Amino acid sequence: MAGDGSDQRALQYEQTLMYGRYTQELGAYAKEEAARLRESGQRGGRPLDLLEYKGRCAKCRICTVRCQKFLISRVGEDWIFLILLGLLMALVSWMMDFCIAICLQAQKWMYGGLDSNVFLQYLAWVTYPVVLITFSAGFTQILAPQAVGSGIPEMKTILRGVVLKEYLTFKTLVAKVIGLTCALGSGMPLGKEGPFVHIASLCAALLSKFMSLFGGIYENESRNIEMLAAACAVGVGCCFAAPIGGVLFSIEVTSTFFAVRNYWRGFFAATFSAFIFRVLAVWNRDEETITALFKTRFRLDFPFDLQELPAFAVIGIASGFGGALFVYLNRLIVQFIRKQKAINRFLMKKRLLYPALVTLLISTLTFPPGFGQFMAGKLTQKESLVTLLDNRTWAKQGIAEEFDYIGHSQAWTHPQVNVFVTLVLFIVMKFWMSALATTIPVPCGAFMPVFVIGAAFGRLVGESMAAWFPDGINTDGTIYPIVPGGYAVVGAAALSGAVTHTVSTAVIVFELTGQISHILPVMIAVILANAVAQSLQPSLYDSIIRIKKLPYLPELGWGHHEKYNIRVEDIMVRDVRYITLNCCYRDLHNVLLTGHLKTLALVESADSMILLGSIERAQLQALLSLQLGRPRRLDFIRERAVGEKRRLSVASDTGSKDGGRRASLEVRFQISTEESTFSPVRPVSQKPLKPALKKPSVVEPPAEIPQIPDENSGIALKNLFCTSPEKEGLEKNNNVESPTSPELRKPSKRVRISVVDDVDVEDDMTIREIAEWEEQQLDEQVNFSNCKIDPAPFQLVERTSLHKTHTIFSLLGLDHAYVTSIGRLIGVVSLKELRKAIEGSVTVKGVKVRPPLASFRDSGTSSSENEATELHKLWDRHKSMSLPQDHAPSESDEKSQ
Amino acid sequence: MAGDGSDQRALQYEQTLMYGRYTQELGAYAKEEAARLRESGQRGGRPLDLLEYKGRCAKCRICTVRCQKFLISRVGEDWIFLILLGLLMALVSWMMDFCIAICLQAQKWMYGGLDSNVFLQYLAWVTYPVVLITFSAGFTQILAPQAVGSGIPEMKTILRGVVLKEYLTFKTLVAKVIGLTCALGSGMPLGKEGPFVHIASLCAALLSKFMSLFGGIYENESRNIEMLAAACAVGVGCCFAAPIGGVLFSIEVTSTFFAVRNYWRGFFAATFSAFIFRVLAVWNRDEETITALFKTRFRLDFPFDLQELPAFAVIGIASGFGGALFVYLNRLIVQFIRKQKAINRFLMKKRLLYPALVTLLISTLTFPPGFGQFMAGKLTQKESLVTLLDNRTWAKQGIAEEFDYIGHSQAWTHPQVNVFVTLVLFIVMKFWMSALATTIPVPCGAFMPVFVIGAAFGRLVGESMAAWFPDGINTDGTIYPIVPGGYAVVGAAALSGAVTHTVSTAVIVFELTGQISHILPVMIAVILANAVAQSLQPSLYDSIIRIKKLPYLPELGWGHHEKYNIRVEDIMVRDVRYITLNCCYRDLHNVLLTGHLKTLALVESADSMILLGSIERAQLQALLSLQLGRPRRLDFIRERAVGEKRRLSVASDTGSKDGGRRASLEVRFQISTEESTFSPVRPVSQKPLKPALKKPSVVEPPAEIPQIPDENSGIALKNLFCTSPEKEGLEKNNNVESPTSPELRKPSKRVRISVVDDVDVEDDMTIREIAEWEEQQLDEQVNFSNCKIDPAPFQLVERTSLHKTHTIFSLLGLDHAYVTSIGRLIGVVSLKELRKAIEGSVTVKGVKVRPPLASFRDSGTSSSENEATELHKLWDRHKSMSLPQDHAPSESDEKSQ
Repeated sequence: MAGDGSDQRALQYEQTLMYGRYTQELGAYAKEEAARLRESGQRGGRPLDLLEYKGRCAKCRICTVRCQKFLISRVGEDWIFLILLGLLMALVSWMMDFCIAICLQAQKWMYGGLDSNVFLQYLAWVTYPVVLITFSAGFTQILAPQAVGSGIPEMKTILRGVVLKEYLTFKTLVAKVIGLTCALGSGMPLGKEGPFVHIASLCAALLSKFMSLFGGIYENESRNIEMLAAACAVGVGCCFAAPIGGVLFSIEVTSTFFAVRNYWRGFFAATFSAFIFRVLAVWNRDEETITALFKTRFRLDFPFDLQELPAFAVIGIASGFGGALFVYLNRLIVQFIRKQKAINRFLMKKRLLYPALVTLLISTLTFPPGFGQFMAGKLTQKESLVTLLDNRTWAKQGIAEEFDYIGHSQAWTHPQVNVFVTLVLFIVMKFWMSALATTIPVPCGAFMPVFVIGAAFGRLVGESMAAWFPDGINTDGTIYPIVPGGYAVVGAAALSGAVTHTVSTAVIVFELTGQISHILPVMIAVILANAVAQSLQPSLYDSIIRIKKLPYLPELGWGHHEKYNIRVEDIMVRDVRYITLNCCYRDLHNVLLTGHLKTLALVESADSMILLGSIERAQLQALLSLQLGRPRRLDFIRERAVGEKRRLSVASDTGSKDGGRRASLEVRFQISTEESTFSPVRPVSQKPLKPALKKPSVVEPPAEIPQIPDENSGIALKNLFCTSPEKEGLEKNNNVESPTSPELRKPSKRVRISVVDDVDVEDDMTIREIAEWEEQQLDEQVNFSNCKIDPAPFQLVERTSLHKTHTIFSLLGLDHAYVTSIGRLIGVVSLKELRKAIEGSVTVKGVKVRPPLASFRDSGTSSSENEATELHKLWDRHKSMSLPQDHAPSESDEKSQ
Repeated sequence: MAGDGSDQRALQYEQTLMYGRYTQELGAYAKEEAARLRESGQRGGRPLDLLEYKGRCAKCRICTVRCQKFLISRVGEDWIFLILLGLLMALVSWMMDFCIAICLQAQKWMYGGLDSNVFLQYLAWVTYPVVLITFSAGFTQILAPQAVGSGIPEMKTILRGVVLKEYLTFKTLVAKVIGLTCALGSGMPLGKEGPFVHIASLCAALLSKFMSLFGGIYENESRNIEMLAAACAVGVGCCFAAPIGGVLFSIEVTSTFFAVRNYWRGFFAATFSAFIFRVLAVWNRDEETITALFKTRFRLDFPFDLQELPAFAVIGIASGFGGALFVYLNRLIVQFIRKQKAINRFLMKKRLLYPALVTLLISTLTFPPGFGQFMAGKLTQKESLVTLLDNRTWAKQGIAEEFDYIGHSQAWTHPQVNVFVTLVLFIVMKFWMSALATTIPVPCGAFMPVFVIGAAFGRLVGESMAAWFPDGINTDGTIYPIVPGGYAVVGAAALSGAVTHTVSTAVIVFELTGQISHILPVMIAVILANAVAQSLQPSLYDSIIRIKKLPYLPELGWGHHEKYNIRVEDIMVRDVRYITLNCCYRDLHNVLLTGHLKTLALVESADSMILLGSIERAQLQALLSLQLGRPRRLDFIRERAVGEKRRLSVASDTGSKDGGRRASLEVRFQISTEESTFSPVRPVSQKPLKPALKKPSVVEPPAEIPQIPDENSGIALKNLFCTSPEKEGLEKNNNVESPTSPELRKPSKRVRISVVDDVDVEDDMTIREIAEWEEQQLDEQVNFSNCKIDPAPFQLVERTSLHKTHTIFSLLGLDHAYVTSIGRLIGVVSLKELRKAIEGSVTVKGVKVRPPLASFRDSGTSSSENEATELHKLWDRHKSMSLPQDHAPSESDEKSQ
């Protein structure tokens, strides 16, 4: 549970997937099974309770039990959970949309009612969003700061198997829902989609917890991860009423490797959710029947001409650059604010000032009678999108005067200014406004603003094309005028695809508009935009992951073939911290002192280096604190007292087996006392095993090793914990608990209760004596019997390529892997090294870990030789170790011939 | 390379992904790097050749080299490959469609021209398909039997990492393309989509081979797998002009775990391919612009009423049952034909009779003037689909007389019979016909026939609804009549989804029809159909995988939670075949004799059982054949001759180091001669190492161990290979090569050439002497130095759950995994055990490997105890092994106290 160290936000995380927590899972399984066994027994395969109740109205009871079990087993089914989740999310989404619509209407009403006085109008226009955003920021800050931002980067990290604390709690849910509603209700260019992924995951996690009251399977961790993946799909699906696009988008955005067997979960839940979401609209009489959210009415028979494709390609490429610029701008703003210490300090003090200032700036610029008139400032985001996707052409013959539609589209027209200028201004202003607004610490996403900007850009290109070819391009007789709305669709998909690095925005636009006729232009533009954007910048979410320094493994860029040539041996840490099977506590102490890795390798011996498993740091600390703890010292004092008593009455034997044990213990301690001045203590260190093996039920400490060191943990131990990263927490423990309070000491006494009762002694040792005693203790050999060892840590070989290593790390959610050569531990690769290596070879800024030509290195001389060398080493070791008694005769044999 | 054993078709496969072939890859890397080093050197990071050319017109040459390198590096880029693949597949698809259309037109023309005589008409109608199908079957049978069938099951297996021989060769491509064209041209109810996945993969594999002439990266295996996955998407994409659906369908059908980083590849290639495919149609003046393949024109404003949803749900559920029935029927037919030995024997003799008979039956029944008139027999598959997706209602008021449209739709009307009867007959007849036709041994898929049947079923429901509610259901004033075409779309997606167990058929229908307005009904129906079908039967492709006994791991069914409770220890094979590091050749021989696993575990010693790695069987056989081969025996004879010569001139020393080496060899052999009668030969077996360690360059055999045993491989070796599963191939080798032909012996001589030259001896040993010599050889210790060892085989622990094991096996494409407990090998799990366990718990027919209550077993007593026991064992071993010299003094110490 060590923190990352270099992390400012001090994210406490731990590894949860397959390998990292295997040992912990073992314990959980064991407990679970023991509990089951206790409950039900195993008489002939039938539960015990059925037989017990035979006496009185057995049948009735059996029936009840069966019904109950059946119901519980039904509740445990995945589809029940998914339906509940879908229903819940659809309701949340619809309610939120409803509230946001009311908020926006209220602003319009206020603004409209005050049209007599421009200044009052401005005040109303500006104050309303400032208040809402400030409230949202403050509320989130107070209730759950984890709710800030989109949440997709965090979900990506969580789905990789890292536990981010507090990100899936009820408090966060409340903060996110209310904060998001207020933020979107303010009319700022913010999105709903990212936070919805987070909200859906929150709902899934809480629902899962709730359901675990009924059934057992909700406690399974890998199932929870599966459900979280489905929840992400639901989030996007019910936000846009786009089930297919939602599933695909969530896969692209959150997963590295996707299990196809989870596919149906996402589809099922997202479809159900989208269905309910749209049905609510029908029931509310907003719609006549279930249709798309932003329905378009482009003609079906001739959607676009083949010769328009270059224009679509241009949209794609330009969107690619635009997307990369957006991500860069967003990161720049964040980093600027962080770096400017004066600003930063000021803003830190008044946390709500920054949101208020940004909102003030943006809402001032969009004030309709002011600058807003040149950029359709009075339209909400949704209205803008609807008008942009309109199937009518605005700029016939390039003359804005013919622009005479009623309704919202009017906002785009201006008596003095061309519609093209309006569009360009809209795009430019909204671009930086969105990039700025998404840095406000409120729950918000960037998808929708980017989508609208893309649509505006597409509309701009489309209108230009329509002005250029008023009668369409086709020359075959029939006139098919150009549809600028189609261009808007293409632009929206391309820009949002570029910012998020996804292809599935194409599917989202089809589902949003209800038309798939522009499939080829959209696909071409999206792919081109992705190609350009991916080669320039990370995706918005990856960028946030880097800014927040979340523990995530970056993707391998595409087309970088040197990845196949970098090998594990080039990036691994060769100086592995390890402990040997026959090490003494002093070694343990030293290892814990010097490094701060979460897990340590357990090898057979320092010579052989055969990897046997890995042990968590906490386990070792527990071992050490048990060895040097006060209870053991009290034991020792007791033993000494008994020994002295016995020396007084020399011939009298206590006779009991307890006495025998005590005698053997005494013997051991006397040896170690005599040899305590740093001699090689091999023969001694062998002995503690024996009693442990022979009388495990008496001498063995109980299975639960206390995780926190005892209050009197002694000098060496304090020394250790003061230098270890867990310093704060443990020191606090040491300070809070006074060394003499007997109540607090009880738990640690309980575990040795069978020994403590017989003789009562006082802790009369001096500091020097304690130090001496601890020195003795440290020279004893470690007894690993009660230590949880991960018996199969993941292993790589030196020549595994970086590409493969990345694949394995992503697939299995590894945190670290040992590099072995025919069983021998030679190195370790952790997420950090891998991240460094990948960023070195992928991003522009990173430092290359090795020159590109490093693959032309000396090791070209056939790998089989290398392996042979390793084998020879192994041979040597093997010979010297296992056959010392055979060695002499064989030599004499040779001589005798 | 051992066959599966139980497999009738004797599929020779080997493991290729990550782990299985790691050692082989190592070799490949080594060679590659050596070649590179040879070419370019490493002087200061700049290629050597640049420096070499400095003398004469250096700049020019440098420029040329750079240009060449740049071009080659460009050719190596993924996107070039994907564009080429897309282009190629689009051309193939379009050409094939063109040919098929001509074939079908020819049949119609013949049938139409002979309308004077019904009998002649019948002959023409029947003969034409019979000839085409028979030709297709015969052609495929002769050229490449692997081209038979859909190819998706095989691709699924290949993408899992299993190499199926001959499935990706040029011959197969030719057979598949020509066979498929003929089969589809015959007008049988067969599909193009499955085979197209295979064709695209074939193209990708061949293109990859072709491109590897230019660049190096095409040799990378994991890259090839990625490209194959993209190719599958291209196959579906260019078959239906459905890029998104194609990508999703190919993912669902072929993958278990999908790497999201490959996503763009599929999209890119499939989009490009679909684009070219449709552009070709435009250029050919078939279409005005790029539109959907089966464009529909349903109304956009009110696509369906909310109250119609139950009808859509009914279609979904019924399609689910129908899909399961189709898969069952298809399997039943295959198994029936296989089981009926008389039929089977007859059909085996006349391989072309079965296709001809089936075709005759089907075409007779569809003969338009005959029974065909009641089932729209004269329509081709494509025409049927176009008419079924028509947006007009056929059965107004339920009266067939109003059915008065021109064109193909007329085929559905009949003077005497209601349109409902026609539809029902069509569905029933086509259902069994399709199930039967797909068993014909020609290249063919089942997707399209099923799609058409589904559309017909949907149309039937839609027409019924239209007849029931002539004015639509909506009561809000406006009359929106029911659109039966929409039902047809829903039905098509649902039934094809049920048969293939995919959700992405929904996307495919949107792309095929160019309309997404029915998204919710389609999604609901598809999900319901999947739910029903998946709980009844495996998918069509999994069914074929089972029938063909392909080495594939079945999916875990959903909702079976006992998977979390079955552990590896319940299914693993405890009796692991292993070899120890210090074993002698006799042990090797025995192990190879008894088992027939592809790889064997290498452990440190039989006591410790510490797993060091795994060795392929072939490697061990090579080791053994090298030890017992003729060259070594000749060496021995030579040594003996030299030894005798030396004994004659006792004091004369040859002096050279070569002589010294020979002397040491002689000594070794004399020892083994003396001790050859089955004594424990430990001391002797230690010795061969020494010379190998000291003079590796002289004594070590060359790195390339011959894979095939020598012609004179000796008695023990023959004995071995006669009992091993590779019997046939190797025996053939033994028989073909006459033992005395010197030309054939040359290659094996070459490898020992440095030794052979000095003394010329004759092979004058008798059989008895050879047997004796071999006995001696078998007692020597194995020298693993030149054996390729996989140093990190995959390891599991006993308590890994079945669910997790399945995940890991699927993720990493494993073939087997060793079960270890703190480094000690305790079992092995192979694909077979896993398959058994999963099928036992998932399918109805399978045998449960353990009772469902097995998780309530006795081991409930905390896992840490188990671990502790293991550790104690390890301790014991450790003590007895590594500290024998320490033991005595420590004991005396104890006594002295």
